[in-house]
Amino acid sequence: MRNVAVIGCYQSKFGELWDRSLRSLGTEAGLGAIKDAKIEKNAVQSLFVGNMSAGRFVGQEHLGALFADSMQMKIPAVRCEAACASGSVAFRSAYHSIASGDIDVALVVGVEKMTDVHGSGALTTLAAAGDQEWEASIGLTFAGLYALMARKHMHDFGTTREQMASVAVTNHKNGLKNKLAQFQLAITLEDALNSAVIADPLRLFDCSPITDGAAAVVLASENVARTLDVQPVYVLGSGQGSDTIALHSRASYTELLATKAAAKKAYESSGLRPSDINVTEVHDCFTINEIIALEDLGFVEKGKGGKFVERGAMDLNGEIPTNTSGGLKVCGHPVGATGIRQIGEIVRVLRGDCFNPINGAEIGLNLNIGGSGATSVVNIFGKEPRVR
Amino acid sequence: MRNVAVIGCYQSKFGELWDRSLRSLGTEAGLGAIKDAKIEKNAVQSLFVGNMSAGRFVGQEHLGALFADSMQMKIPAVRCEAACASGSVAFRSAYHSIASGDIDVALVVGVEKMTDVHGSGALTTLAAAGDQEWEASIGLTFAGLYALMARKHMHDFGTTREQMASVAVTNHKNGLKNKLAQFQLAITLEDALNSAVIADPLRLFDCSPITDGAAAVVLASENVARTLDVQPVYVLGSGQGSDTIALHSRASYTELLATKAAAKKAYESSGLRPSDINVTEVHDCFTINEIIALEDLGFVEKGKGGKFVERGAMDLNGEIPTNTSGGLKVCGHPVGATGIRQIGEIVRVLRGDCFNPINGAEIGLNLNIGGSGATSVVNIFGKEPRVR
Repeated sequence: MRNVAVIGCYQSKFGELWDRSLRSLGTEAGLGAIKDAKIEKNAVQSLFVGNMSAGRFVGQEHLGALFADSMQMKIPAVRCEAACASGSVAFRSAYHSIASGDIDVALVVGVEKMTDVHGSGALTTLAAAGDQEWEASIGLTFAGLYALMARKHMHDFGTTREQMASVAVTNHKNGLKNKLAQFQLAITLEDALNSAVIADPLRLFDCSPITDGAAAVVLASENVARTLDVQPVYVLGSGQGSDTIALHSRASYTELLATKAAAKKAYESSGLRPSDINVTEVHDCFTINEIIALEDLGFVEKGKGGKFVERGAMDLNGEIPTNTSGGLKVCGHPVGATGIRQIGEIVRVLRGDCFNPINGAEIGLNLNIGGSGATSVVNIFGKEPRVR
Repeated sequence: MRNVAVIGCYQSKFGELWDRSLRSLGTEAGLGAIKDAKIEKNAVQSLFVGNMSAGRFVGQEHLGALFADSMQMKIPAVRCEAACASGSVAFRSAYHSIASGDIDVALVVGVEKMTDVHGSGALTTLAAAGDQEWEASIGLTFAGLYALMARKHMHDFGTTREQMASVAVTNHKNGLKNKLAQFQLAITLEDALNSAVIADPLRLFDCSPITDGAAAVVLASENVARTLDVQPVYVLGSGQGSDTIALHSRASYTELLATKAAAKKAYESSGLRPSDINVTEVHDCFTINEIIALEDLGFVEKGKGGKFVERGAMDLNGEIPTNTSGGLKVCGHPVGATGIRQIGEIVRVLRGDCFNPINGAEIGLNLNIGGSGATSVVNIFGKEPRVR
């Protein structure tokens, strides 16, 4: 396999964008990433679109062809889907196409238009990421699923509501300078603790919102990347794991085996360890998930994630700066776009053109999760290519 | 890139399967293909699912995780979508993952459960394969789109309703022995010509039906394939093309530039020409599309496809035996499954374990089309591997 680099990235404004369509958001992001890569549009050989549910949200499938058309690029195009990890599975497909030697340059667009829902509501549509027959059909929403995980983590390890709320406070602090975020809003621990109950023990500020938005990255082989006037950020490792789609089928509610499998593969393929990682973007769809993520990625022992975040380990100057963007919680969570937005944030931090600089950051990681953890993707990025 | 082979294939019964779920159909096909490949389930390293619109048809997204779970395989899994070419884009993703050296064995499951529709009707759901804003929203169905193409082909080249009907007659004849087909039914030219008008000039027998079904293939690297007790069928070339998603944006209604681009790439990458192909499965969602396909693939000059099929060129003993299975018309068209079903048919013909043997067939091709031709995929298969 050949080395592959991210040579360009772009993110649209995230939010409730009533004046924007699915098509306009994805097109803006795709063309923006091409501009950032300083390449001509016709250098792109394949398009990969990450999207969970445009068919239900806005009545449009066939998004590969749609965006190839809207960007006026007659190239092979495919939509990849794995619920909220759709962006990352699209990224991995592009990565494999270049690593294989089949193509040299690929564009990955992640997009979701969630606020003007065609047909049933957004929560019903999102429930299709879980087990439709055995979870969604009996009314189990995603807040409900993660509430069960939170309750069990509290029971088994003494994790507290304050610790979960501290994740929200930190992410809101990190996102204050993020002009593309859905919320630029400082909150206190009390704000989080006293916000409305969504699914006990999760409160409003424990939950990521419903969001419209798009993000894109351009990938290239190392050979091509080196000829360009950009600072490439290399893919050092990538892993993907699966677990049962229904939460109730799992032996444990307090760890995601899919994340552990994805992390193992990403660490092995990069030759790196958790202690080598300088910055991460992790999937905080609910605050409990950031705590579980930091444990499953190996940054802290299982069960000690609550204390870890409470003592500031994920702060910008902490042991493992996490969600420097503000995370899903603050950026918003247009599900198909989230994985790509995370990758763009890591790329910008490593390039040094970010609003929350991390001194000396050489290696970054993103974790993107689909459903209640049936799919996890972990990618590791570095400023220097891997020597093979 | 490494050589890749199909080492196993399976197809479920296609039809109106009221007693079957999406989950049971896809699981049957996946496990069936693994059995056909004579491998252990744990040899499979990644799962690729081709599906257009389970979110709308049955309220379930995240099909990669769903089928990995239902088959009890905790492996990376992704759903790939390109409308009616979803099966083929899933196949290509698996092919690239193996060709790259990332993995050695992949399972591809194509599936669609279309007859018990959740929410809006099947035709509305299928319209999401076209341009939702500029075609579907004004009521243009797929029969309508292909009727426009048929009318223009008749106008420009003198193609007749009899010639289109002859495609249906031949496909019904080919499919008579196909026990997995939706229709085992001989029809006459008069039956086809006198059937109900669907979208003038297309009649009932010019149209493929709404279908439930699944198909699967197992792919392996040549190195692994050679160690197994099966007859591998090698992927000699593969190409994918895109065109505008809306038909009205195209310069021509009588050719599909996406098919021409896909065919060019597939021929080039295999080092083969149209005259080297012994058998094909092509995308006859409507009879006019089989005529256009044979032209775009280079088997006959543009505009002469009508006369070509009328004189029997696509018959089992004709110049280019086409749709030996009966095609979409007779097998049925569970959209996400169709591309994989086509590949399975080509594999079985080349292996010689088929119900319509083609003497001396060494090289086969499949053409799978998404929407009104916004996506086309062409794959070429052979009994012997390509020498690189």
